[in-house]
Amino acid sequence: MSKIEQLVQTLKKEQADAVWVSNPINIFYFTGYKSEPHERLFALLVKADGQQILFCPQLEVEEVKASPFEGQIIGYLDTEDPFEQHREVYPTLLIEENHLTVQRYHALQQAFSVETFGAADPVIRQLRNIKTSQEIDTLREAAKLADKCLEIGVAFLKEGVTEREVVNHIENEIKAFGVDQMSFDTMVLFGDHAAAPHGTPGERRLKKDEFVLFDLGVVYNHYCSDITRTVAFGQPHSEAEKIYNIVLEAEQAAIKHIQPGVTIRELDDIARGIITDAGYGDYFPHRLGHGLGLEAHEYQDISSTNQNPLEPGMVLTIEPGIYVPGVAGVRIEDDILVTEQGFEVLSGYEK
Amino acid sequence: MSKIEQLVQTLKKEQADAVWVSNPINIFYFTGYKSEPHERLFALLVKADGQQILFCPQLEVEEVKASPFEGQIIGYLDTEDPFEQHREVYPTLLIEENHLTVQRYHALQQAFSVETFGAADPVIRQLRNIKTSQEIDTLREAAKLADKCLEIGVAFLKEGVTEREVVNHIENEIKAFGVDQMSFDTMVLFGDHAAAPHGTPGERRLKKDEFVLFDLGVVYNHYCSDITRTVAFGQPHSEAEKIYNIVLEAEQAAIKHIQPGVTIRELDDIARGIITDAGYGDYFPHRLGHGLGLEAHEYQDISSTNQNPLEPGMVLTIEPGIYVPGVAGVRIEDDILVTEQGFEVLSGYEK
Repeated sequence: MSKIEQLVQTLKKEQADAVWVSNPINIFYFTGYKSEPHERLFALLVKADGQQILFCPQLEVEEVKASPFEGQIIGYLDTEDPFEQHREVYPTLLIEENHLTVQRYHALQQAFSVETFGAADPVIRQLRNIKTSQEIDTLREAAKLADKCLEIGVAFLKEGVTEREVVNHIENEIKAFGVDQMSFDTMVLFGDHAAAPHGTPGERRLKKDEFVLFDLGVVYNHYCSDITRTVAFGQPHSEAEKIYNIVLEAEQAAIKHIQPGVTIRELDDIARGIITDAGYGDYFPHRLGHGLGLEAHEYQDISSTNQNPLEPGMVLTIEPGIYVPGVAGVRIEDDILVTEQGFEVLSGYEK
Repeated sequence: MSKIEQLVQTLKKEQADAVWVSNPINIFYFTGYKSEPHERLFALLVKADGQQILFCPQLEVEEVKASPFEGQIIGYLDTEDPFEQHREVYPTLLIEENHLTVQRYHALQQAFSVETFGAADPVIRQLRNIKTSQEIDTLREAAKLADKCLEIGVAFLKEGVTEREVVNHIENEIKAFGVDQMSFDTMVLFGDHAAAPHGTPGERRLKKDEFVLFDLGVVYNHYCSDITRTVAFGQPHSEAEKIYNIVLEAEQAAIKHIQPGVTIRELDDIARGIITDAGYGDYFPHRLGHGLGLEAHEYQDISSTNQNPLEPGMVLTIEPGIYVPGVAGVRIEDDILVTEQGFEVLSGYEK
């Protein structure tokens, strides 16, 4: 069954008249057409009878026609009311509560005489949660390109280089491999600067005998990778080395436990348990990981509160970390596919 | 009066108890702290008594402390309810209707026992609409760097080069000038490919005697530039030349008309009138321009429906275009400050 057919089935099950998809990433997921028209209205309406209508600015109509999308196109000028060309009544409308703004919510209520709103988020999240084999191939390629970024970055390390220079070098060199977008701001942090888990690369210069934390990913055919390595430059001091080994042990133990049916929170428990037993529990202030796909961070949370089971086709990150201010910050992160038998680690850079 | 003080004054005037600012750009505008924690809660609460509270993930608390923000910080772990540390009642709460999601809207209603929601968008838009002298200096610098991008790009044009290669070259070379982020995806389109106003640069190769359309901008100290030039490579055919001259005439006429008190729609009328009189009205399918600042496209629309007057301190783009499929696409865009006396064109690349 196609992705749209599964969406239509949900409409029928929930006795809804239509679903309004407004998150551009979800629109791409269903239509194969990518756009980000900022404040302008851009949305996919799917009716319970399966009809698809894409609302978009007039100046995108030609691009939509050239895309895989095969439904009706409603283009509008900046001076026009986009709803003018589609005066219909949808008493029960599903929306993405996690994306639709309060302003548009009021506008839809009026335009389509909506009486009851329902959430489309759960079904769309669930669809995107299980990757197709085509999506998996793409994610595998994205992870390989992130490995390549690490190779490029590590080879460029030398005393006195700045974090920002390493970032620029990676982002320039990876273009030769067809990458024109990173999946988030590339992070390269030296020594104790890495102890701020969301630090920003700057003019800090690399000194001998410290760790370098790389957290990066690429966008490949719209799909993201997201990997982290903490690499020794010379011989970091013994507490930093000790922290590194604890994080690596925690990461590997969590990964080995991955297989369908395992409750997600168990993964967090395993990694956090190892870090806590080693006395660093207070220095691991974030969840263990997250889903990965069209977004670098997507459903679902790999955290201690997630009771859902792992399912084949899920792709997620495992990324424990320990951050001790003034001492060191270490994080190790891989991209992992849940398979029928267990798992496949998509990222391969040594650790 | 500081930006926050003006916000507090609005709260008093509207008899609201607090305002919930959740758009990260607006949070930066008021606090000087920049973050984009994706699905995680990140918000600035400003109470009618002037108290400021920033809600952020625990792992950002150290960065916030190091920032200019001086209010209270509430950090939370992924496993915690962010509202748990702030159980208060705000019967009347202003929100950004154009940013807050339906999901968070319901969550705020419950957390703060909100009875009446009001829109904070108008006051924040109005504040951001009039730039301070510090913001203007930054925007002036951002526009100069966009000029530099054009210089770099034009110097790189040669027969057989691809659009994508020109984009990469510009983005690589401009880094030496301290730019590490473009304000949107750089657009370089050759010949009739430019006739799709939102086209994507690709493997199209440059031929002799065609136009090259550059639409680009940089982020400088968080502020954006956004300029467009359509540059002849060799001697484009006569209809393309004719279209170029019409667009240039339309752009210059609109710019010359800029001064405080002029109704914004007049600018669109002037440019559109010239293009329509020349017989190309149907080939100019977008508004004349938009506001510019922390975002590449921000309040307000420079369009035929905008009855607001120009005010000193506004920064906007003027960007008429004509797109004839199979023939040519021409757009010319400058960044302009409205001054007490008239206007100052911030971008300077020849046209």
